[in-house]
Amino acid sequence: MAKLCRWCWLLLASVCFILSGSAFNSIHVSRRSYSSVDAPAYRTYYFTQQIDHFGFDQDLTFQQRYLVSDSHWAGDGGPMLFYTGNEGDIAWFCNNTGFMWEVAEELKAILVFAEHRYYGESLPFGDQSYSDSKHLNYLTSEQALADFAVLIRHLKGSIPGAQDSPVIAIGGSYGGMLAAWFRMKYPDIVVGALAASAPIWQFEQIVPCNTFYGIVTNDFRKSGPGCAESILTSWEAINRLSSTDKGLFWLSTAFHLCSPLKTKEDARVLKAWLSETWVNLAMVDYPYAADFLQPLPAWPIQVVCKYLQDPGLPDMELLKQIFQAANVYYNFSGDTQCLNISQTATENLGDLGWSYQACTEMVMPMCTDGVNDMFEPQRWDFEAYSEDCFKQWGVRPRPSWITSIYGGKNISSHSNILFSNGDLDPWSSGGVSCNISDTLVAVKIPEGAHHLDLRYSNARDPPSVQRARRLEVQYMKDWIGKSRAGH
Amino acid sequence: MAKLCRWCWLLLASVCFILSGSAFNSIHVSRRSYSSVDAPAYRTYYFTQQIDHFGFDQDLTFQQRYLVSDSHWAGDGGPMLFYTGNEGDIAWFCNNTGFMWEVAEELKAILVFAEHRYYGESLPFGDQSYSDSKHLNYLTSEQALADFAVLIRHLKGSIPGAQDSPVIAIGGSYGGMLAAWFRMKYPDIVVGALAASAPIWQFEQIVPCNTFYGIVTNDFRKSGPGCAESILTSWEAINRLSSTDKGLFWLSTAFHLCSPLKTKEDARVLKAWLSETWVNLAMVDYPYAADFLQPLPAWPIQVVCKYLQDPGLPDMELLKQIFQAANVYYNFSGDTQCLNISQTATENLGDLGWSYQACTEMVMPMCTDGVNDMFEPQRWDFEAYSEDCFKQWGVRPRPSWITSIYGGKNISSHSNILFSNGDLDPWSSGGVSCNISDTLVAVKIPEGAHHLDLRYSNARDPPSVQRARRLEVQYMKDWIGKSRAGH
Repeated sequence: MAKLCRWCWLLLASVCFILSGSAFNSIHVSRRSYSSVDAPAYRTYYFTQQIDHFGFDQDLTFQQRYLVSDSHWAGDGGPMLFYTGNEGDIAWFCNNTGFMWEVAEELKAILVFAEHRYYGESLPFGDQSYSDSKHLNYLTSEQALADFAVLIRHLKGSIPGAQDSPVIAIGGSYGGMLAAWFRMKYPDIVVGALAASAPIWQFEQIVPCNTFYGIVTNDFRKSGPGCAESILTSWEAINRLSSTDKGLFWLSTAFHLCSPLKTKEDARVLKAWLSETWVNLAMVDYPYAADFLQPLPAWPIQVVCKYLQDPGLPDMELLKQIFQAANVYYNFSGDTQCLNISQTATENLGDLGWSYQACTEMVMPMCTDGVNDMFEPQRWDFEAYSEDCFKQWGVRPRPSWITSIYGGKNISSHSNILFSNGDLDPWSSGGVSCNISDTLVAVKIPEGAHHLDLRYSNARDPPSVQRARRLEVQYMKDWIGKSRAGH
Repeated sequence: MAKLCRWCWLLLASVCFILSGSAFNSIHVSRRSYSSVDAPAYRTYYFTQQIDHFGFDQDLTFQQRYLVSDSHWAGDGGPMLFYTGNEGDIAWFCNNTGFMWEVAEELKAILVFAEHRYYGESLPFGDQSYSDSKHLNYLTSEQALADFAVLIRHLKGSIPGAQDSPVIAIGGSYGGMLAAWFRMKYPDIVVGALAASAPIWQFEQIVPCNTFYGIVTNDFRKSGPGCAESILTSWEAINRLSSTDKGLFWLSTAFHLCSPLKTKEDARVLKAWLSETWVNLAMVDYPYAADFLQPLPAWPIQVVCKYLQDPGLPDMELLKQIFQAANVYYNFSGDTQCLNISQTATENLGDLGWSYQACTEMVMPMCTDGVNDMFEPQRWDFEAYSEDCFKQWGVRPRPSWITSIYGGKNISSHSNILFSNGDLDPWSSGGVSCNISDTLVAVKIPEGAHHLDLRYSNARDPPSVQRARRLEVQYMKDWIGKSRAGH
């Protein structure tokens, strides 16, 4: 309930904030185990890290979790593939980054998955880590990168045969941003980085704020006639019904909600939850059945769109179809008894952590107009966003900081970073989609959703992701070779 | 007195610490105004900076001072030369970096001198800035670099015609380290860096701990027969005399000390003060009369060595000569009534600041052996050093952090940095003295002391520093040209 209230409260002030924050959050909300029968085998370790790398007043430490698999490693300076953990449990990322396991075999590489501080088990102050802004003060990307740097130096110093191992950073989504920034800031530590679906330009005014939701909309437009229009029409239908108690009751029943809607504000939560559902579907619109955020069929948006062919239906008929569509996402297994509209953001630290990060460094302007996209119009309102952050966390976001520290668009003097993006993925809106130089390379995956390339290969993979993976491996081999040759 | 006690106390535990810390300190102890009749003209500004760039709990700001001269600037995208201020009053650095003023004319550049936080007027917490480790927590090189980055973005956004100006970072000594690190970490903000006399490798075990004092010794060896030997012999002579009250009285009189020596510990302070004097002389062994740390004649070590030709003299005779030698440094003007052995580290914030920085990030191992150098043997004792730091500041140094964050020897993937070093300068011990790549270039100045190249040109400049400056300007032009061509 506390959780729901948090979201409700945020919604009142800034739908965009919710939409952007939660979409990113939802990357890690599920903790379902890897769907393959052969779960990857790794060992779990803990490393003592400074809580504050950038200050000396508090000399406190915490235990950072990391996972290691050396089953394919040849030792003797063989390469290390290092996953720069993002906002969630590292075991979950480990289990959902099959590409690394496949590449490890090909490159005879050792795999390391490093957990991001404040997520999973890597809590600097244990169960007090999220208690207030004082304890949260060390949850930043810079501290996380420093953790990675110090950890890699430790690993090279302690794993026999790893001393001269070329290390490649790999990450997806925020983890991809970290991989790219890690190579930019610590090029002595990693010879290159694969930044998959990393929206490093989704800051300030680098990209238009409406592109993200435009891509979500396009995914629905392309997946069935009338689909995006049905969703666009649905908002007003909900508004009309939620204006009466009877309508609210009808909505609660029609959507099989676990907790009935009681006020107009509850209806806002319903709309935000639906928006997030459509965003999540765009992120996981994979060509085969998969269980990333939820268990889903192949090309799930096409399945959803089968219910959404007629935007001209009367309100109740239309919303019944909307329910069926949402049900594809929430109840593909058929086991779900009722839908919980606080559910896409489940009770886990990852949510909270990303919400805090979005309120400090990770300020990603988002907006919708209801014309170029299928969402209710909402302008980007930084002042309201900042007020919400202050109320929730007691901190103010610094919207230009990420550009100051990581360079924004001006990254051409860096090298050896692959930016892969799928055209179906809304996060490609802030991604690097054109080559910047010979060594800062954009890898395009037209049929790809959110970091499809990082998943295990699959018989139904489109040729574009197969090509992308081959290219990525080729670059990795090149970086490793050049590193060994002393370049 | 408090100051003297601080030094005394430190001396007890770690002479090396004193030697290294104070030598570096002494770069900024003098606040004498620039000796040229034509003092450079600049305007003074203040910019609102975050006190903590890397944390959001405290949203406090301070006023960073910076100086601007645009008298030679052509505007319209003309270059900016940006001095990355080090541990002292920025006006003093501004007045002692004549090279920038000369280059500004040649390149039609705007000059900016940015003050380092916690020094000069740029005190984050006013007169409370040094009150305890909590207030000092934001005195780090990373915060200083972030200040520079944010300031440059501000300048480019606010000075008409500067938006597309290529910016070159320039600094000497610790400021040179900052210039180099700034280019490494923010290559989008500066197109290149001139790091003059920047000992970026004086950390961990990258260079032997005894090289620094070996260079000081060589300067004295080369400057006169018997000179280094006389100094080497002097320590035991002081030890013998200081073992009796009569001897202490004699020493106090012979050295014209303002406060007489009373204990053996006072004699230790005398020795540390003498050591520091010889180090300082090595740093400022310039080919012409200059007033950097003190007003001094041309080639001051040669003048000093005229008094130190016979190491075989009896104790008192030898020490009278040592006094005469020290007097060259402290009383070249002839106005000094008595010598104050707490004097090379005068009462200013710079001292305190560097002492804190040396106790946190800037851990530079130093040692002497009395065989390859002319100093009393002292091994590098990190544990004692750490204890001293904890007693003085309540913080523990992290000796490997600088290598983790700035890459240590592995900097070859960076570009466009000139590392200039003079062979006479003890700090060249930790400098980059060989080219690392086509764009990471070592500029050698065999006859140069501490960042001689950054000083105004002088008729008595040796050809090597003239060549160095020409080369430096040539590289700057190249960086500017390539930046304009979009490379």
